[in-house]
Amino acid sequence: MARALQLARRGRYSAMPNPHVGCVLARDGRVIGEGFTQPAGGNHAEIEALRAAGDARGATAYVTLEPCSHHGKTGPCAEALIAAGVVRVVAAMEDPNPLVAGRGLAMLRAAGVDARCGLLEADAERVIPGFCARMRRGRGRVRAKLAMSLDGRTAMASGESQWITGPAARRDVQRLRAASCAIVTGVGTVLADDCSLTVRAAELGMNEAEAARASARQPLRVVVDPALKTPPGAKVLDAGAPTLLCHGESAVVPEALKVERLVLPAAERGLALDALMDALAARQCNEILVESGPRLAGALLRAGLLDELVVYMAPVLMGSSANPLLHLPLETMGEKVPLAVKDLRQVGADWRFTLAL
Amino acid sequence: MARALQLARRGRYSAMPNPHVGCVLARDGRVIGEGFTQPAGGNHAEIEALRAAGDARGATAYVTLEPCSHHGKTGPCAEALIAAGVVRVVAAMEDPNPLVAGRGLAMLRAAGVDARCGLLEADAERVIPGFCARMRRGRGRVRAKLAMSLDGRTAMASGESQWITGPAARRDVQRLRAASCAIVTGVGTVLADDCSLTVRAAELGMNEAEAARASARQPLRVVVDPALKTPPGAKVLDAGAPTLLCHGESAVVPEALKVERLVLPAAERGLALDALMDALAARQCNEILVESGPRLAGALLRAGLLDELVVYMAPVLMGSSANPLLHLPLETMGEKVPLAVKDLRQVGADWRFTLAL
Repeated sequence: MARALQLARRGRYSAMPNPHVGCVLARDGRVIGEGFTQPAGGNHAEIEALRAAGDARGATAYVTLEPCSHHGKTGPCAEALIAAGVVRVVAAMEDPNPLVAGRGLAMLRAAGVDARCGLLEADAERVIPGFCARMRRGRGRVRAKLAMSLDGRTAMASGESQWITGPAARRDVQRLRAASCAIVTGVGTVLADDCSLTVRAAELGMNEAEAARASARQPLRVVVDPALKTPPGAKVLDAGAPTLLCHGESAVVPEALKVERLVLPAAERGLALDALMDALAARQCNEILVESGPRLAGALLRAGLLDELVVYMAPVLMGSSANPLLHLPLETMGEKVPLAVKDLRQVGADWRFTLAL
Repeated sequence: MARALQLARRGRYSAMPNPHVGCVLARDGRVIGEGFTQPAGGNHAEIEALRAAGDARGATAYVTLEPCSHHGKTGPCAEALIAAGVVRVVAAMEDPNPLVAGRGLAMLRAAGVDARCGLLEADAERVIPGFCARMRRGRGRVRAKLAMSLDGRTAMASGESQWITGPAARRDVQRLRAASCAIVTGVGTVLADDCSLTVRAAELGMNEAEAARASARQPLRVVVDPALKTPPGAKVLDAGAPTLLCHGESAVVPEALKVERLVLPAAERGLALDALMDALAARQCNEILVESGPRLAGALLRAGLLDELVVYMAPVLMGSSANPLLHLPLETMGEKVPLAVKDLRQVGADWRFTLAL
């Protein structure tokens, strides 16, 4: 199962909107086939492993997620395992997809397969947190990526900001992007940085085949732009990736604007960001990455829409005149926002904190 | 020598103003005596080790610092080693004290002892950085201790600040204090927190004997108080530890004020903090700990007087209205202050960065 989890992670840049799953077929103590979820429309992990094995009669399948029971773009994997003569299936976790939810295991058992579930369950959940979140609560996992100095600053008051962190951190961010279904930013960041928000194969720090797979699909770029101020020539509107412009009801839509738009209802301040997350869930976005300035990230945090912060900290002081990490006006210590440090590691000369909210 | 370095560290809370040194005597591959520097006026490490050994004829002495050659409060250790019949001395580093500076080793060699120097030299330097700094550049090592939230804030705008970090971090700070010769703060912190700035045996998290040794001596409390606004009833003026009030020439000295005072010349903004550091060096302060608000810490940093930051980071967001880590008004990215991360570790629920400037 540990090997199956390794395999599963190999699909994390390409399987979406499907969960990335790994499968190992073993017989007589020997691995006879392995596979992981192929890009959407392609084979699921079990089918890949069966193909690799050729003859899987009498084998045990170790799979990180319950085999599916329904006809999607591909046939049900549970049926395929039965047809191939697999006699035992060990799944790490039940599929949180209400279309499956135990039906895959039931289908296997009905066919006389010894089907069990729960081995390394917690590890399996950690491999696909976005998919699990979307299935269980109807919204994907939302992470905000932030880059700051040791003293918690993101830009000089003048707006000067680029390259706070080093090349290793920027490569790490490219991988975060590649693992995301959507990248959300605000119009302020677009106007300040003219960012492209694309995955660039050469900047992933992977070998050529991996980089090609990770960058074959570009995440949806989402710009929160209440009054539609994104300039027509902005890089975020180019053909490098699909883009969704989210604006308010009263925004005037320029005729030249060719990209997809989404009207969001007004909230107390700005647009209703929960409606945005619902819309992204409807588009099957599992992993949503926020790469914005302190204002949008702060608004998402205050709205309770952030699950995780990924903070890259450069060992440098930017000073007390510089801009804050998050626009988060709190008055008393009682309002402070507790975080749980899930991971802390050195990334080049910088430090990356992964923090759960 | 590794054992001698361990022993040396046992003196770090009590040997000052002397450097804390460790000594191991060995003969025929067996340790026959060990010692470390006793509180000022007490035995040096070599004398302790000789006493423990009883008969040290023919032995080798491993000592973390060149044995002294001069008569201070105690006789020269080089003479004592010769008199005891030690035949070989291995020192980790030469004594940076200009009164010694190779004379100890020369005295040993002149008496026919095989005296060598340089084993684990870099490690030995790291044990006594404050003493080395004071001997070499005429000023002790200055560290600022800071406690902040993940977003680099030290207090709410309202001033509410205590207990950002947890009990383990506060215990760690008690140890930092115990290892310091002087603790520097500003009148603003005294007025806001009425801090006592003492070492409290019960809060060191040590066993009773260690805690008693570490708290037997209280570091000098230094308050930078330009206009002498420290209230007469402030805890920092109590009998718990000696106190030095530093003020400007024009300050009116209250008659009731009983503690020692130091007049500092005026600088461009506030008082001349370099003159303060010179004065502390003249008082033989090796390790100087700054526990102040963002203003004094920022002024010391801008004046180039800080060697190290010890930053306790609580995994919490305090928000963008809260006070900054350091008062450090910088304008451009070119002015940003680079730091070198020397150590990063978890201290309870908080994280401690040790950063060299």
